[in-house]
Amino acid sequence: MSANPTPTIPASAIPQEFIRATTRLSEAVTQPFPNSRKTYVTGSRPDLRVPMREVTLTPTQTSQGIEENPPVILYDTSGPYTDPEIQIDLMAGLSDVRSAWIAERGDTELLSGPTSAFGAARQNDPALAHLRFEHLRTPRRAKSGQNITQMHYARLGQITPEMEYVAIRENLKLDELRTDPRYVKLLRQHPGQSFGAALPDLITPEFVRDEIARGRAIIPANINHPELEPMIIGRNFRVKINTNIGNSAVSSSIAEEVEKMVWSARWGGDTLMDLSTGKNIHETREWILRNAPMPIGTVPIYQALEKVDGRPEELTWELMRDTLIEQAEQGVDYFTIHAGVLLRYVPLTADRLTGIVSRGGSILAKWCLAHHQENFLYTHFDEICEIMKAYDVAFSLGDGLRPGSLADANDRAQFAELETLGELTRFAWEHDVQVMIEGPGHVPLQMIEANMTKELTDCFEAPFYTLGPLITDIAPAYDHITSGIGAANIGWYGTAMLCYVTPKEHLGLPNKEDVRDGIVTYQIAAHAADLAKGLPGAQIRDNALSKARFEFRWEDQFNLALDPERARAYHDQTMPQTAHKVAHFCSMCGPHFCSMKITQDVRDYAAAHQISEVETVLERGMQEKAQEFREDGASIYKPV
Amino acid sequence: MSANPTPTIPASAIPQEFIRATTRLSEAVTQPFPNSRKTYVTGSRPDLRVPMREVTLTPTQTSQGIEENPPVILYDTSGPYTDPEIQIDLMAGLSDVRSAWIAERGDTELLSGPTSAFGAARQNDPALAHLRFEHLRTPRRAKSGQNITQMHYARLGQITPEMEYVAIRENLKLDELRTDPRYVKLLRQHPGQSFGAALPDLITPEFVRDEIARGRAIIPANINHPELEPMIIGRNFRVKINTNIGNSAVSSSIAEEVEKMVWSARWGGDTLMDLSTGKNIHETREWILRNAPMPIGTVPIYQALEKVDGRPEELTWELMRDTLIEQAEQGVDYFTIHAGVLLRYVPLTADRLTGIVSRGGSILAKWCLAHHQENFLYTHFDEICEIMKAYDVAFSLGDGLRPGSLADANDRAQFAELETLGELTRFAWEHDVQVMIEGPGHVPLQMIEANMTKELTDCFEAPFYTLGPLITDIAPAYDHITSGIGAANIGWYGTAMLCYVTPKEHLGLPNKEDVRDGIVTYQIAAHAADLAKGLPGAQIRDNALSKARFEFRWEDQFNLALDPERARAYHDQTMPQTAHKVAHFCSMCGPHFCSMKITQDVRDYAAAHQISEVETVLERGMQEKAQEFREDGASIYKPV
Repeated sequence: MSANPTPTIPASAIPQEFIRATTRLSEAVTQPFPNSRKTYVTGSRPDLRVPMREVTLTPTQTSQGIEENPPVILYDTSGPYTDPEIQIDLMAGLSDVRSAWIAERGDTELLSGPTSAFGAARQNDPALAHLRFEHLRTPRRAKSGQNITQMHYARLGQITPEMEYVAIRENLKLDELRTDPRYVKLLRQHPGQSFGAALPDLITPEFVRDEIARGRAIIPANINHPELEPMIIGRNFRVKINTNIGNSAVSSSIAEEVEKMVWSARWGGDTLMDLSTGKNIHETREWILRNAPMPIGTVPIYQALEKVDGRPEELTWELMRDTLIEQAEQGVDYFTIHAGVLLRYVPLTADRLTGIVSRGGSILAKWCLAHHQENFLYTHFDEICEIMKAYDVAFSLGDGLRPGSLADANDRAQFAELETLGELTRFAWEHDVQVMIEGPGHVPLQMIEANMTKELTDCFEAPFYTLGPLITDIAPAYDHITSGIGAANIGWYGTAMLCYVTPKEHLGLPNKEDVRDGIVTYQIAAHAADLAKGLPGAQIRDNALSKARFEFRWEDQFNLALDPERARAYHDQTMPQTAHKVAHFCSMCGPHFCSMKITQDVRDYAAAHQISEVETVLERGMQEKAQEFREDGASIYKPV
Repeated sequence: MSANPTPTIPASAIPQEFIRATTRLSEAVTQPFPNSRKTYVTGSRPDLRVPMREVTLTPTQTSQGIEENPPVILYDTSGPYTDPEIQIDLMAGLSDVRSAWIAERGDTELLSGPTSAFGAARQNDPALAHLRFEHLRTPRRAKSGQNITQMHYARLGQITPEMEYVAIRENLKLDELRTDPRYVKLLRQHPGQSFGAALPDLITPEFVRDEIARGRAIIPANINHPELEPMIIGRNFRVKINTNIGNSAVSSSIAEEVEKMVWSARWGGDTLMDLSTGKNIHETREWILRNAPMPIGTVPIYQALEKVDGRPEELTWELMRDTLIEQAEQGVDYFTIHAGVLLRYVPLTADRLTGIVSRGGSILAKWCLAHHQENFLYTHFDEICEIMKAYDVAFSLGDGLRPGSLADANDRAQFAELETLGELTRFAWEHDVQVMIEGPGHVPLQMIEANMTKELTDCFEAPFYTLGPLITDIAPAYDHITSGIGAANIGWYGTAMLCYVTPKEHLGLPNKEDVRDGIVTYQIAAHAADLAKGLPGAQIRDNALSKARFEFRWEDQFNLALDPERARAYHDQTMPQTAHKVAHFCSMCGPHFCSMKITQDVRDYAAAHQISEVETVLERGMQEKAQEFREDGASIYKPV
């Protein structure tokens, strides 16, 4: 239930499109995953409750009796939407998670209203009443002279509740599981190859603090987005997934965007960027933020461009500044800022096969050329830092010159910009502003590692956040896969967050099913990277699912899957009968011919004869046979 | 048109299910891809005609006028089905490609009929008339004392038409394109990282011969499968894709299986394994072979098991021998033989999380334990070689002990078997029998390379042929993706052929759409590997598609895509109007706000002002600004 009491709203004031969205949410999005329940781990204070998903499994029937299969604890991005104890009311927004923590620090103050001209105008425009979120928060800002970023606290040695929260969240009760004998088999895991990452055996709040202080991880958490469930982005933590939503002039409505946000959370999106470019961006963003359990990012220059009717050359620093404040006061948690698109880099793209493909990059390139001046985001970077630190907005330093095709990968334009992003990282860190670095794009497999290595060096280990990369250009309609391959690899090498790509990339706007396909693909990539780096406990879910598969516990196999619904549906297409869900065979082999069944026989046989005895017999038989075989062979085969 | 004249068949003799299949083929499968035409490159003799697909592109409209975009030549696995000049008649089978080549060598003889007892019985059973392919070929076999394998010829220094054919096929006219000024831009390509592969600049017949003689590549081409369009499997060539079809006791019919074969060829399957386990395996296989342009593989022990009603312990060498001959005389091009599942390795699997998951592996494990004897495929390996070389069937040495979960990856059981496969490779090579080695399975990312390295060492560089590997176990319904990630990586490291996985893996039997999803995913993986290794010319298609994308040539972008239909359909979901296919914007940004459009403006601007001039101005402006910025920064920022 929302902490804000549900107010009585005159029916006429409720946007029709939202009534529709609310209804749909309750049907399709708020239902818990099968056999799963939301659990909370409470930290050092009662209002620090970290959600997790617990999947209950059925026992194994063995010839020796029943073997219990303990529950599997999963990282849960779905927010309050999958907690049946919580009444969801999109009209009122989510409950606060962090307001008390923020208030207690005493270094911020409530403003009387938006301090951006545009924000104030939108709030006071009666024509927008039908679109406006009903319960606007009063914006909060750092007191004069105060720095209120998580990096600032970390550097002062302070462990914030946010830091403790993410430490608990990352561990998934691993400390408990390690002392529980039921988990011995599930805890088996191969050593990782970490490429210089230093994943601790167990994540402590102090480790989180230290990583943030060093700039190696960030917690994007604007003080004006207290609904957020804190999460951390850094290569010594679980690899995260960013999803994008956003309408455009061609299609989409506010309701659809909010619904996509909840949908994204459900399937595993860790953060979400609102890339809207159409009308009512301000209002859409408010609805999203008030209902978003994950950090929200934006590319503020998109909105600034709207304000000058799409003419890049008319952009000004003053307009951009007002837009940054407008969005920071709504609660946006990270801004993509293309401050590395320097005037001198623009001509480096002229001979490219695909020029500049980043929207932000091309806007700024056009501005630079039109004015014969340096990128105003670069020249005003110190003022941007002042805004970021007043609300704790994190930088996502944009790669406006990323390659749009394999041909342009790792070229001088791309790497020159990356070097500048490193320079800007240092500037931001001098303000204690949190930073992550955006990366490509389109890069063939053999050139991916160079991107990661250069980023770590040039940007001083600030978290890398990449779009794929796509490892070939020839598969439009399958670019979730072309990019998922690149994402798994770059995640393994050290990328902290992967920006998802949907099957519609390059072709159109994703619908809900495309979003699901994209996120699940990226969950695969991120998890593969966690396993490859050796994240402690990462293999538990694989082991539990494989055990269920081998034991023909079909329901458990479905329930542990990244997409339980689709796994079940695919199975049902071949074997719809309920009886088959407990059958000791599968459709691939049929009832009389199943490798897993035969293996069980082998195992039973080995157990019955005791392996040591079997081994001796086999060993003897083998030696005789091998000897015989070799003797035969020596006469039959031609000399080498 | 088939070389065999279409006979008059009494309507009553035509299986109903085939009439259906024929009809469907003509509608969905025989249509050429859009803007594509089948071209043939003729070799040193007029009957050596190598098919390719040529995609015609539209010109680019530039401010300076029209720029021609030359056609792109693609590797074509689709067989005669996409040649509108050829009349397809499934009842008669495909035309011969190789009969004259085989006959000319004079080292084989026509038999009077099947020499296997089972094959003869099926052929003479009047009850099977309604299922039987109408135009059975008389089987052919090596003359007594003759070795007729491609490896044998290669080692004698002979370049066969098959070798010349694959050399032409692999090159895709690259020699011509290199001297054609229209291709200069498209030929740009990044250097590869080859992991010891030695891809030549241009593939010659002599290079093919040498690779086959060394055992580093194979041309699976049974003399009883003359319809086959030869292809090569080896790590110094394009990475190939194997697809699987097969009915089971639960579902599927002959007609469906043949249709899937043609469908598989259409989407890019290079070889195909018929894994049928139900009734009428013999007849199904005949229909498939007579209509298959690609090499067909089987796992003969599946059929042998059928013959003993699914009881592994009742298998005998004599039964297996008859089955091998039966299938070899039908024309199967490669056999999976699980001769490495040794008795002493079976107990090594007892402590695994998922035991033995290979069907062949579990059958043989059960047989070994039941009899307390060594695997009869191992003890009779020399006799198997004699059969293989009489028809030129290639070995696909099966990995019966491959891991079925991450937990079991790279364990002693798996690697012990691999070492034995190396031993068997040497034996087979002493007979000049062609060999490839099957590989896993389920392997986390960081452990994939070790598989490749060990295979190259232990199996003396025989081609590796892997099933994925899947890099996580947690995504049933998305295992084409989990395995596609592993496949791209292991292909890059040196795997020669990737066995596809469909979304239904672990859940059920794939339907046509699943097959398409699986193959396209594996085309992505194989192509990514080709690019990563640095296969000459591999980037042409990427470059052409990216150029089309950047120039808003939507139709060309679709037509160059791995799946033109789906790319177009996805685009149409957002922007269905025909006008949008030529619009200079896309749905992601809308008509007034498009990064590619802006980039074009940037490029025009740069061209108008001449880059050298622009650079000078920019460089000066930048230096001044940077200086100013640094000076500002020095006073504003705190010391580090």
